[in-house]
Amino acid sequence: MNVAIFGYGNLGKGVECAVAQNYDMTLYGVFSRRDPQTVHPLFDTTRVFAAEEIEDHAEKIDVVIICGGSATDLPTMTPALASRFNVVDSFDTHADIPLHFRRVDEAAKAGGKTAAISVGWDPGMFSLNRLYAAAVLPDGKDYTFWGKGVSQGHSDAIRRIDGVQDARQYTCPVEAALEAVRNGSNPHLTTREKHTRLCYVVAKEGADLVRIEREIKTMPKYFADYDTTVHFISQEELDRDHKGIPHGGFVIRTGQTGLNGEHKHVIEYSLKLDSNPEFTASVLVAYARAVCRLNQRGENGCKTVFDIAPVDLSASSPEDLYAALL
Amino acid sequence: MNVAIFGYGNLGKGVECAVAQNYDMTLYGVFSRRDPQTVHPLFDTTRVFAAEEIEDHAEKIDVVIICGGSATDLPTMTPALASRFNVVDSFDTHADIPLHFRRVDEAAKAGGKTAAISVGWDPGMFSLNRLYAAAVLPDGKDYTFWGKGVSQGHSDAIRRIDGVQDARQYTCPVEAALEAVRNGSNPHLTTREKHTRLCYVVAKEGADLVRIEREIKTMPKYFADYDTTVHFISQEELDRDHKGIPHGGFVIRTGQTGLNGEHKHVIEYSLKLDSNPEFTASVLVAYARAVCRLNQRGENGCKTVFDIAPVDLSASSPEDLYAALL
Repeated sequence: MNVAIFGYGNLGKGVECAVAQNYDMTLYGVFSRRDPQTVHPLFDTTRVFAAEEIEDHAEKIDVVIICGGSATDLPTMTPALASRFNVVDSFDTHADIPLHFRRVDEAAKAGGKTAAISVGWDPGMFSLNRLYAAAVLPDGKDYTFWGKGVSQGHSDAIRRIDGVQDARQYTCPVEAALEAVRNGSNPHLTTREKHTRLCYVVAKEGADLVRIEREIKTMPKYFADYDTTVHFISQEELDRDHKGIPHGGFVIRTGQTGLNGEHKHVIEYSLKLDSNPEFTASVLVAYARAVCRLNQRGENGCKTVFDIAPVDLSASSPEDLYAALL
Repeated sequence: MNVAIFGYGNLGKGVECAVAQNYDMTLYGVFSRRDPQTVHPLFDTTRVFAAEEIEDHAEKIDVVIICGGSATDLPTMTPALASRFNVVDSFDTHADIPLHFRRVDEAAKAGGKTAAISVGWDPGMFSLNRLYAAAVLPDGKDYTFWGKGVSQGHSDAIRRIDGVQDARQYTCPVEAALEAVRNGSNPHLTTREKHTRLCYVVAKEGADLVRIEREIKTMPKYFADYDTTVHFISQEELDRDHKGIPHGGFVIRTGQTGLNGEHKHVIEYSLKLDSNPEFTASVLVAYARAVCRLNQRGENGCKTVFDIAPVDLSASSPEDLYAALL
């Protein structure tokens, strides 16, 4: 299975590593919009091509993993590539998924190709767990918590404030809210009650720290609805202690069964990830395998994690899986 | 969707309740090997038929949920019914799954029907989580822990000891082992290190308690390999405090990604169930829906949870699921 990477940031690097962990896959190469001479892959053996040349390699590539951003890249990239290649992306703008699905579906069907969109952990593994749990416990309620983890969007928002040199923002689930959910009390939780925001900020020399902290805490949408803590630290501290991109979270569904709902059940799925982009990349790679298989069986068009049977994600045969994991 | 229950013990009762929670399903009736006059369903509206009459109702039943035991019932029942009905069972003798699969597959294909075997939580939801986690983190190790929960087999084994009137056995995961796994230390765990066994025993009057305790703790396979605790209590206490059939457990996979495996990840799935049979029944019912849909699409033969796409488990449309849960 020849896999190409389209776009080479943190996610693309994660895919480069993940492909190497899967014995049934070969990395065909990286396609970048930058000058290939300036792109330095993690592995010496990884070839780098210009993005616009990808058409010339179509016959040799089984699937393209598109590693662009959801805001501006994927809405155009994925439909454009899906008519010519089997593709997988991690489109994560929840509200726009139905529109993205239709565009990619149309392109993939026109080209006889198969696509999987919104693959990762949320959307992705978390979505799967929301669906399985809801199907099994229809009389119930589910909750998703994120963190503790770095939000790039919130970190960027802080960096745009005047006087800020650098920043890292962690989204943290509120332990008391998690416990209330696990106890099956079906709490109604406000935004503030579910998550807190923890900010590490490097201020420029002479900057007004009181103003910066106020601007962060009152920023609409990003921070105003949360209990936010701001710590000012040095660039050295930030680089030393906050360089990673950890993330994770919890999907919990509580529900009841029995003649009168007398029996309670808790289904909980959680992720604790040292590297958000590398884990997302690992999920993308498993679905890249599935997309190739679906296409070989003539199942064209756009899919999501909901539409793909688990067996198609594994390098092992169904018989081996029945014997070993069922 | 007309659903029939074949076999009416705790699991069958759970299915009776679960079908009532799903608006797209109707309970056709219960088929029992006992005299129908002696079977008293939970709902007044539930009809009871003799098991041997089920053929006469074939045209009106969309799917049969087979609620027999794995040891003696299901190996013959499921293949026998699968040629004439879409069926779902909870066959859980792990080692015999491949053989059971082949027999059911042959019968279902001969009759143009669809079957799902080994549906429940283990095998079932736990198997799914082992597969998804292994596919996403190929360089890793997974662990399954059970409990705290009632093991019927172990409770029965104690009851067979001379001088024992009644008993309840709980399987308990060892907290220190769970923590070692979560911390990513990839421990090698013996049987004894993973689970303990907690027994509540009602002795007959005048019975030799020391002998009973020794017979329990030294019983091969069931208890000898575990740290076992025995509490003697009264029948009243057993009936009052140990009447439920709770269960649950944990599937945890830890793995690494990156250029040199420098980033660790923990995927954890857990269940905390007030009623083991009712939860198993709820999973069976969701897969009964999927089996009907697969059959309508002409996808015949035997399936497992690995082979069925999540979308087919839900009463909601794919479009609604993309918008609401993805």
